Amino acid sequence: MKNTPVKIIPLGGFDRIGMNMTAIEYEDSIMVVDCGVSFPQDNMPGIDTSFPDITYLLENRDRVKGFVITHGHEDHMGALPYVLRQINAPVYGTPLTVSLIEKRLQAFDVAGVRIRAVRMGYAVTCGAFRVEFIRTNHSIPDAAMLAIYTPAGTIVHTGDFKVDFTPLYGDPIDLRRLAALGTKGVLALISDSTNALVRGMTPSEVTVVHRLDQLFSRYKDKRIIIATFASNVDRVQHMIRTAASYGRRVVLQGRSMLEIFEAAQELGYRNYPEDTLIKADEIGNYDDRELVLITTGSQGEPMAALTRMAEGTHEQVKITENDVVIYSSTPIPGNERALASTINLLEQQGATMVFQDAHVSGHACEEDLKLIYSLLTPRYAVPAHGNYRHRYAGAQIALRMGVPKDQVFMLENGDVLSLTEEEAGISGRVKTGEVLIDGSGIGDVGSVVLASRQSLGESGVIVITLSVDHRSGRLLADPEVITRGLLFEKESGEILTAIGCIARAAYMEERDILHSDLPAAKGRIKYQVLDYIRSELGRSPVVLPVITRVVI
Amino acid sequence: MKNTPVKIIPLGGFDRIGMNMTAIEYEDSIMVVDCGVSFPQDNMPGIDTSFPDITYLLENRDRVKGFVITHGHEDHMGALPYVLRQINAPVYGTPLTVSLIEKRLQAFDVAGVRIRAVRMGYAVTCGAFRVEFIRTNHSIPDAAMLAIYTPAGTIVHTGDFKVDFTPLYGDPIDLRRLAALGTKGVLALISDSTNALVRGMTPSEVTVVHRLDQLFSRYKDKRIIIATFASNVDRVQHMIRTAASYGRRVVLQGRSMLEIFEAAQELGYRNYPEDTLIKADEIGNYDDRELVLITTGSQGEPMAALTRMAEGTHEQVKITENDVVIYSSTPIPGNERALASTINLLEQQGATMVFQDAHVSGHACEEDLKLIYSLLTPRYAVPAHGNYRHRYAGAQIALRMGVPKDQVFMLENGDVLSLTEEEAGISGRVKTGEVLIDGSGIGDVGSVVLASRQSLGESGVIVITLSVDHRSGRLLADPEVITRGLLFEKESGEILTAIGCIARAAYMEERDILHSDLPAAKGRIKYQVLDYIRSELGRSPVVLPVITRVVI
Repeated sequence: MKNTPVKIIPLGGFDRIGMNMTAIEYEDSIMVVDCGVSFPQDNMPGIDTSFPDITYLLENRDRVKGFVITHGHEDHMGALPYVLRQINAPVYGTPLTVSLIEKRLQAFDVAGVRIRAVRMGYAVTCGAFRVEFIRTNHSIPDAAMLAIYTPAGTIVHTGDFKVDFTPLYGDPIDLRRLAALGTKGVLALISDSTNALVRGMTPSEVTVVHRLDQLFSRYKDKRIIIATFASNVDRVQHMIRTAASYGRRVVLQGRSMLEIFEAAQELGYRNYPEDTLIKADEIGNYDDRELVLITTGSQGEPMAALTRMAEGTHEQVKITENDVVIYSSTPIPGNERALASTINLLEQQGATMVFQDAHVSGHACEEDLKLIYSLLTPRYAVPAHGNYRHRYAGAQIALRMGVPKDQVFMLENGDVLSLTEEEAGISGRVKTGEVLIDGSGIGDVGSVVLASRQSLGESGVIVITLSVDHRSGRLLADPEVITRGLLFEKESGEILTAIGCIARAAYMEERDILHSDLPAAKGRIKYQVLDYIRSELGRSPVVLPVITRVVI
Repeated sequence: MKNTPVKIIPLGGFDRIGMNMTAIEYEDSIMVVDCGVSFPQDNMPGIDTSFPDITYLLENRDRVKGFVITHGHEDHMGALPYVLRQINAPVYGTPLTVSLIEKRLQAFDVAGVRIRAVRMGYAVTCGAFRVEFIRTNHSIPDAAMLAIYTPAGTIVHTGDFKVDFTPLYGDPIDLRRLAALGTKGVLALISDSTNALVRGMTPSEVTVVHRLDQLFSRYKDKRIIIATFASNVDRVQHMIRTAASYGRRVVLQGRSMLEIFEAAQELGYRNYPEDTLIKADEIGNYDDRELVLITTGSQGEPMAALTRMAEGTHEQVKITENDVVIYSSTPIPGNERALASTINLLEQQGATMVFQDAHVSGHACEEDLKLIYSLLTPRYAVPAHGNYRHRYAGAQIALRMGVPKDQVFMLENGDVLSLTEEEAGISGRVKTGEVLIDGSGIGDVGSVVLASRQSLGESGVIVITLSVDHRSGRLLADPEVITRGLLFEKESGEILTAIGCIARAAYMEERDILHSDLPAAKGRIKYQVLDYIRSELGRSPVVLPVITRVVI
């Protein structure tokens, strides 16, 4: 009994940053840590995404005792609507995480899921496991590390974290608890490798505060527009406080910004003077120097508020030479082109651009990781969360911190790592892969992910859906064309048919290279359809090609 | 009884970096943490130094239960020979610290002192206190933090420390123990403020290793001379290992280098291949590319080995264009001029100089300090070790880490801080000040501090001692003149008398500005005597004016 190993089985997130999912298994109990989607692969965020192949979980459905979610980011919980439809198991997370999950399930019409909010510092039982949520710091409130107590020993899963001694609100990461765990003995550490390549310590969130203060002081006469990540609630709240201290009013722009902000508000995570916030349609009542717009679109996303401002299609905001645009963000790889285009447009209209030092990472750098190793001194190290080079850097840190080489495991998705105090090794493989998903046929996802209705109403949208064989790329049905917000909507079956034909032809042209370049196929469809609509109707709607790769 | 306060009384080190001494008092028990001298104030290290006025300890002699020394640096233990002659109390420290203290007491002919070596992690009883030694990292092995358990609560004194997750030898700082102390509750933290002004984390000692490896690889054909601090035993040992890995032999140069190195060796702190070390007189048997000289003199000290090499007076070493001199050190403020002169001389002889990145500090920077606060969450904060601006920076860190403003104390030497869980405040003052000391009349100090006999034998030395009233500067007796290693030594009473007169005249000329500029008076004596000797004898001995300021 004592020698039954505990198994760590990464199902996603060990080949990239995104799509995180790891099964922990002991005898007849499986718990799943995180259940995320991948980040958007091209410039159509939210439309095409993917999550890990859960064949292994489906085959062991009855043994799955629960999903434990470390925090409320898409790449850690975004796949729950898809997965929970197929596996009925309870979900555990800290309050904000649970609140965001509930909103997501609601939007996807997934009901009947048992969800339990666990307060930070508390523990729940999940099959053979007892799981304790330990406070960390990250770019969203309520991010937790997990201490997973198993009969074979304690596994610590860091989730996404950084060490911030001076977070804006709330407490620093609970280092004392980690020290106590280390003193008792830790079997294995599964650790965030995102920033393992980066030297030093991750700067504290307060450095952003100082920088913003400097910028507010410098640009007293201008309207200030700040692009940032919607989920960094603490940062957004502090921006509101800073605005208030400079006598400005704040407009929050973008659906996801408002959604996450409201979820945090409902939980009482409120730290700003309420009357500072005004609605978008009140902008006209204030001078530029009295306004701050905090907005989504820091990645150049096509329908985000900042992008619409840049393109001149935003209803309330017109960019002028009296605007300063502060990017409190860093480009996620793959978004550079879209972002550059937005920036060009903003600059052409005379806005002053600020990119420097108004952002810090939410992930542990080298010294943060060393600190965790120093406190936990785990027997085995499993660097997670990243592609090979990130995890390799994580492994180097483990070695430098004294974990012997044969106790550091560079796993791939699907590897089964079996651990006991006495021995450890990869004892098997399970099926893994990537399931591509999109809006068609997945409940309400269309309206959730296709950005705000306002945007659609302004410019119109054409969604073209193609179902193809995931292996051969063969088109399985005629393209489906749906339009919204276009004048010709009700009258022009002919145009819809033409769009379908153009899309089919464009797809066939790119078919040979489909597997290596899905975005290219969609790009071709998009631009050929757009050309047609422009010449027919003289308008430029948003064209969204959706390619569903079907496993048959 | 429960409400009796514990008192923290800094006697030295709260007005500068150096001369550290703090009394901790509870009812009839006084323990003294550290007992240091000041760093040399001019370019005559070891001759003129000072230690804190211990009037308060002398007045309470019977209550002094012991001296607890955090580590073996001069500014923490160098005053013991003077103080222990007046107060008979036991001394506690970790093994290397105790070994260095014993050597120092022996050199000063101080006998009969009870000294006890305490292993790291263990505790001793000292009057009403129980004192635990906790492992830290610093620029000398065996540096300890102290957890001082008092009936009024636990006081943690950091000593000098940094957080090094990857020290060259031995373990990182015992963060888990600090976390456990924090969990139980810490009344007050007395913390090293030396680097509180420096952002980020102090780099690990391994960064020096990487840099040295790079330099050894770059300068394969040259003789390598490395100037570093004698007490950084781990670094010196690792230099020897690096030399060995490049097939080179190593000569250790300088008395203090050999002395501390040997003390560490006796304790078994040995981590290098023994046959790599050769003696100075074997240098001639090797090519430049087969040699590394590790030497004292990184501060430009007048009689240190590197300085003698630079001046061309070193017996075995002549600097050529095939030498590369690496400064694995940083100038201590006040030494810049002497150092610059040494560097000039080395460069004139064609040596390649390297100053960059071959040194890291041994003191905690901002993030290291935040980590300690995060683990201990002390009720009261007492920034120590530094002048006002260092300690002010330390206080800012305490505030940022959540210690309320009225619980952060910026003490001055002599302040009596009384603490209980309920209240805290400065409850009085004791006498403090600085006692100037020099070689004359203090036992064997002359031979200890006046550098190696070799050096004296080479060039000869003249020591001129003047005793003056500490207040008025009035000369209290005729100057005393002693010479060693000069040809005329036995024959020339006349020359000795002449030197005395010259010194007296030179002193009188500078007397008016004595209080503001002691070095100027000594400089004048030195150069006027040297002029005389050069013209009389055609030689340039080392001239050491010693001015003793006597309190009468």
